[in-house]
Amino acid sequence: MNIIEGGITAAKGFLAGSLCAGIKKSDSDDCALIYSEKPCVAAGTFTQNKVKAAPVKWDKKVIEESPFIQAVVVNTGIANACTGEKGLENCVVEAEAVAECMGISPENVCVCSTGVIGPQLPMDKIIKGIRELPAQLKETSEAATKAAAAIMTTDTRPKEVAVNADIGGVTVTVGGMCKGAGMIHPNMATMLCFITTDVMIKKELLQKAFGEIIDDSFNMISVDGDTSTNDTAIVMANGMAQNPIIDKEDEAYEAFVRALRYVATELAKKIAGDGEGCTCLFEAEVKNAVTKKDAKILAKSVITSNLTKAAIFGHDANWGRVLCALGYSGADFDPDKVDLTFESAAGSIAIMKDGNAVDYSEETATKILSQNPVRAVIDVKDGNFSATAWGCDLTFDYVKINADYRS
Amino acid sequence: MNIIEGGITAAKGFLAGSLCAGIKKSDSDDCALIYSEKPCVAAGTFTQNKVKAAPVKWDKKVIEESPFIQAVVVNTGIANACTGEKGLENCVVEAEAVAECMGISPENVCVCSTGVIGPQLPMDKIIKGIRELPAQLKETSEAATKAAAAIMTTDTRPKEVAVNADIGGVTVTVGGMCKGAGMIHPNMATMLCFITTDVMIKKELLQKAFGEIIDDSFNMISVDGDTSTNDTAIVMANGMAQNPIIDKEDEAYEAFVRALRYVATELAKKIAGDGEGCTCLFEAEVKNAVTKKDAKILAKSVITSNLTKAAIFGHDANWGRVLCALGYSGADFDPDKVDLTFESAAGSIAIMKDGNAVDYSEETATKILSQNPVRAVIDVKDGNFSATAWGCDLTFDYVKINADYRS
Repeated sequence: MNIIEGGITAAKGFLAGSLCAGIKKSDSDDCALIYSEKPCVAAGTFTQNKVKAAPVKWDKKVIEESPFIQAVVVNTGIANACTGEKGLENCVVEAEAVAECMGISPENVCVCSTGVIGPQLPMDKIIKGIRELPAQLKETSEAATKAAAAIMTTDTRPKEVAVNADIGGVTVTVGGMCKGAGMIHPNMATMLCFITTDVMIKKELLQKAFGEIIDDSFNMISVDGDTSTNDTAIVMANGMAQNPIIDKEDEAYEAFVRALRYVATELAKKIAGDGEGCTCLFEAEVKNAVTKKDAKILAKSVITSNLTKAAIFGHDANWGRVLCALGYSGADFDPDKVDLTFESAAGSIAIMKDGNAVDYSEETATKILSQNPVRAVIDVKDGNFSATAWGCDLTFDYVKINADYRS
Repeated sequence: MNIIEGGITAAKGFLAGSLCAGIKKSDSDDCALIYSEKPCVAAGTFTQNKVKAAPVKWDKKVIEESPFIQAVVVNTGIANACTGEKGLENCVVEAEAVAECMGISPENVCVCSTGVIGPQLPMDKIIKGIRELPAQLKETSEAATKAAAAIMTTDTRPKEVAVNADIGGVTVTVGGMCKGAGMIHPNMATMLCFITTDVMIKKELLQKAFGEIIDDSFNMISVDGDTSTNDTAIVMANGMAQNPIIDKEDEAYEAFVRALRYVATELAKKIAGDGEGCTCLFEAEVKNAVTKKDAKILAKSVITSNLTKAAIFGHDANWGRVLCALGYSGADFDPDKVDLTFESAAGSIAIMKDGNAVDYSEETATKILSQNPVRAVIDVKDGNFSATAWGCDLTFDYVKINADYRS
């Protein structure tokens, strides 16, 4: 597997276009279109929030019921969430407009929105934008990066990843883009992820692989613990690499899963590391837990603890807060067995052994914790299961950003 | 029921004393003793954190196995948490010292600590303090307030409540003190609550009442979602009011429960309203949920949402975040039925009706949200169960305090 430049257009036959439809007050791009020259089998995972935005309902239906999809249209600025029947109708109108422009069927078009919860979409502007998007479609990495920027809300940078993998002697490409940063602006909805690949694979296997990978990547990150109404992750596979079709869980399947997992994990880490107001990516690995579930719960409890997140911001090797977060997670472990090590580019330092603090240099610890990313390795020495979770530090800017008036 | 002045010494036969034993760097009091002239039946609830401080283990044993307790000694500065066997031995030594001074048995002495996690207690200083405490014991409300101040860590003010209730023609008093403020200083452990009453009641009924009440009060507050290693709530009843003993769930029992519930709830609210760095108490009431459990989960999800807490700090009527927090709580409700009203001393304003924003004045909303306390009333119109949770806003000072270096 090789890491390559590019993102959503890295795989064969995928094009991206973006423009400013005037949905946001600013004049930055706020509309993007992803299009595949050939129909794609697709898989998706969506927010578990009981409050689901209209596009989430539409996309769920499309991905479950349509054998293929070929285009995804995305807008930022308004989330089309809590918009009732009218919101759902607007999704259909958007899909129909894209279908008409591209000569495909509305059932093959996914629709995504991110932005303020409550207001209806300005359909005149959006439809005008959709009609102009096809002329913007390009295969270039510049077009991909421009699209990655167009879907941002309060992200500070576009997020893209791409890799090549050899599958049965054929080079297959997997690329993607995402946006996150958390619900930073009042009522701002959060996470969108789009991954494209030219692999040839059965839809059932794509769904199976994607579900497992999302559980270990996007479901293991947290910026502020709040999950949004619009969270969506979609993968599209158009088969244009012409590898022998992956129709069982063989070596070729495993090779593809490795590539897809890398892309999803790196995209997820980019979201955690760009959390609102944050100064560093904070990674927690839990080793040797009794079950995989325990490992995940423990790792996630550490990266979501406000006290631990604030300590990381303060470059403070606060093992007491880490142990506390493990303790109230509800997962099974023995506090008297826990070892804790902090790691970063500046080195590694053992902080806790068998549940007790070891004699360590605060100065060295602070040096290590002053880097980005910062990593906590927690060995519970209780079993054979490991998990990693990714978050960020809790900073003044997080509060500032989120306490700002909407006016 | 009448609200009266005073706290831990309000009920007949209870004395309090406090002094500076030199455990903390500052010269403020850091040791307190609560003593009852007569043995007390007692009940307690303790942290659910898997990492339990030594005093929690000792007190659990005392409360479960001793028919009576008569004294509680408390120190602040060091939590005696993650201190292994030595920490447990130190609890016994403390209990023995108190027992010797007061002429009672160590099995009748509870021991509580709050402060930094990790270091062992300075036993020389503590034992010296314990020997000097009996001379400090007084029945006065001044002594009670001084004791309430002595158990503070980073609380900004002592927390006391007391009430009278008529039980079978006899005046019974319930009073208490607590400390909280959250794990503000690095490794600082959190919540201690002590309630004293002169009611005569069977231990089993006291435990039953206290368990239920704690679930609705102390288990419904959150400062930062982190639960500590030392959280402890103890109630002592010495029977000196000489009411007919409460030995079944009759009217007298209900009258006592109302008084105990009021004291516990007001103490809990004082902790939430004094959360680190906070500017206001934030109360969320969920009405008409399908089950009591759903109502509690929903209310707690709102007051623990960082985004909602930051919005409250910003005086921002951010209904989207409230609806989101309800949505990811995991509780059962219909997003399309939710009504939301914000209330404070400045008035009341309807923000959301049937899951959609109503047309409201941002200016009026901001006025209402600029008060302390602020209250969100959430009607899910789905059933007959209600619950209230108490938290605070998320501020710059929370981050500042918790990001400070320990050095």
